[in-house]
Amino acid sequence: MRRQLSAGLLLALAATAAAADEDDIVLRGMGSFHVGGRVIEISGRPVTEIVRVPGGPPSTLDPNGRYQVEQMYVQYFLPKNRRGRLPLLMWHGGGLTGATYETTPDGREGWLNMFVRNGWDVYVSDAVERGRSGFASPDVWKGEPVFITQTDPFERFRIGAGVGSFDRDPAKRKPLPGTQFPLEAYENFTKQIVPRWLTTDDAVLAAYIALVDRVCPCVLLTHSQGGPFGFKAAQARPDKVKAVVAVEPASAGNVDKAAALKDSPVLMVFGDYVDQDSRWVSYRKTDLGYAAAIRTAGGSVDVISLPDIGIKGNSHMMMMDRNNSVIADVIQKWLVGKQLVD
Amino acid sequence: MRRQLSAGLLLALAATAAAADEDDIVLRGMGSFHVGGRVIEISGRPVTEIVRVPGGPPSTLDPNGRYQVEQMYVQYFLPKNRRGRLPLLMWHGGGLTGATYETTPDGREGWLNMFVRNGWDVYVSDAVERGRSGFASPDVWKGEPVFITQTDPFERFRIGAGVGSFDRDPAKRKPLPGTQFPLEAYENFTKQIVPRWLTTDDAVLAAYIALVDRVCPCVLLTHSQGGPFGFKAAQARPDKVKAVVAVEPASAGNVDKAAALKDSPVLMVFGDYVDQDSRWVSYRKTDLGYAAAIRTAGGSVDVISLPDIGIKGNSHMMMMDRNNSVIADVIQKWLVGKQLVD
Repeated sequence: MRRQLSAGLLLALAATAAAADEDDIVLRGMGSFHVGGRVIEISGRPVTEIVRVPGGPPSTLDPNGRYQVEQMYVQYFLPKNRRGRLPLLMWHGGGLTGATYETTPDGREGWLNMFVRNGWDVYVSDAVERGRSGFASPDVWKGEPVFITQTDPFERFRIGAGVGSFDRDPAKRKPLPGTQFPLEAYENFTKQIVPRWLTTDDAVLAAYIALVDRVCPCVLLTHSQGGPFGFKAAQARPDKVKAVVAVEPASAGNVDKAAALKDSPVLMVFGDYVDQDSRWVSYRKTDLGYAAAIRTAGGSVDVISLPDIGIKGNSHMMMMDRNNSVIADVIQKWLVGKQLVD
Repeated sequence: MRRQLSAGLLLALAATAAAADEDDIVLRGMGSFHVGGRVIEISGRPVTEIVRVPGGPPSTLDPNGRYQVEQMYVQYFLPKNRRGRLPLLMWHGGGLTGATYETTPDGREGWLNMFVRNGWDVYVSDAVERGRSGFASPDVWKGEPVFITQTDPFERFRIGAGVGSFDRDPAKRKPLPGTQFPLEAYENFTKQIVPRWLTTDDAVLAAYIALVDRVCPCVLLTHSQGGPFGFKAAQARPDKVKAVVAVEPASAGNVDKAAALKDSPVLMVFGDYVDQDSRWVSYRKTDLGYAAAIRTAGGSVDVISLPDIGIKGNSHMMMMDRNNSVIADVIQKWLVGKQLVD
């Protein structure tokens, strides 16, 4: 009798175990949605005939009418063993999409997988105008999109040693000494680049706030250009943004509204070689000024310069650097310290 | 002793069961990559100064240099209990992205989740120029992108009863009788629309073939404009594309190359009301001509008109229609019949 029972239970155990090993990602749900945006109307334009696929019939293209614009795409992953107390929203930087947080250009797991494995409900979005959020016509946005060369991020993201460090020949590039960026995958990284406008900040922020209204209270994890959007969203919804992790924020929020973050702890993380790059020195100065304003209002801001804690060689794209899991751990520990993890 | 043992086993069971219930999605991996594309070089353009984020320092924008263009974004989900014998690649239609296959506009699970639950390794891509694949400058692609109104898909995707069926007031719209499209979420569906070019077919196909070379042998599941791309990729790599499921292909492959598919079974699926729409009659005629050419070469093509098997009311966007799971089952059964499922 006992043997029968044990055998039966062990079989059940084996079957369940086969369904989820330690390395597996067990989700109670995953999906996507679009949020925010508005409808505009165009009129008075000529109607044309187009062929949509080669060999297909002609069809009418009437550009007049109503257009959905400035919405934002969001994809979410909800782990079974939820430990993060709030959803974690990952906002990317300029010229990029949510792919920033996915598999690294050299094929390792990115922060999306790592934080899902840590038990966080993770929401990765593509800012308005980028990726699966689509983009609007010149009727809606002034100016042309900016297209980014392969040279640009190598020299500006502290992968290479500044201007002149990129070469079409990988062997002739001049990376910063000890860089953690996976140099052999740099070309692959540039496949993640998407065009960006310089005139869409209001629309981008509006959609981020719409996202906050939909899924928060939450924690924001922002990168680069996502930094100021995150701080401004927190200023607009201080009751919903419970904490902000800003990875190398490329500028900050509004100093005169920094007091809104007095109850939302902030962590700023900077990589290596910031001092050698005047642009990053400038951004960091702005960030630290904003941090001081939050502290003056009674809030809490921790600033971690990774080299100061012995973590060297990190580029601006630290979520895809070779030691990306080490930095994820630094962030996770801070979140634990803020009682945001069960 | 028996009680102790049972309690121990039950605790273990409970812990494991908590890690994976029947409704959970258990993945042995998930991630993304970009594939294909090429590098172009621009020269002789003026250098300008721009401010990338409000309040940030000016920085130089040098448009000259090398650009990565025409790559394609691919996201994959690998279920623990793999039953599909080959990867299943989902290719979307014109003016859309891989979001087509994710959560439906009214918040139900889409075909991505359904086929992952059925045990398929699923790869969802954004065609070149769309979504997370980014897009190239006018130096690379001739012509402007086409922006799509809210009216257009309602009238052209057999949701509404043709031209004149859309109205800005949802109450005044004229849907096809018994439509399965979730009408209340139509506005939300239009948030998935992205601009499209009419001059990029060669680049789109090249990246799809690069994907096939990377992850196949495989099964293709295509929709609309993805249909002809799928057939042409199968023509180019008949040894790697082992089967094609084409949902309302908007045109087909090349009849003179159809013999390449003689060893790759094909399923074409059409929704309701095709006969009432001259554009879809035209596409179907092309598709059936291609099917005939495959059969003449000794190949196998099954054509399912859903109303003929009692499934009524389906629009062109059947993967997000209310009965999307019924159609997923039709496709799954066909795949089982072709010995593509363990």
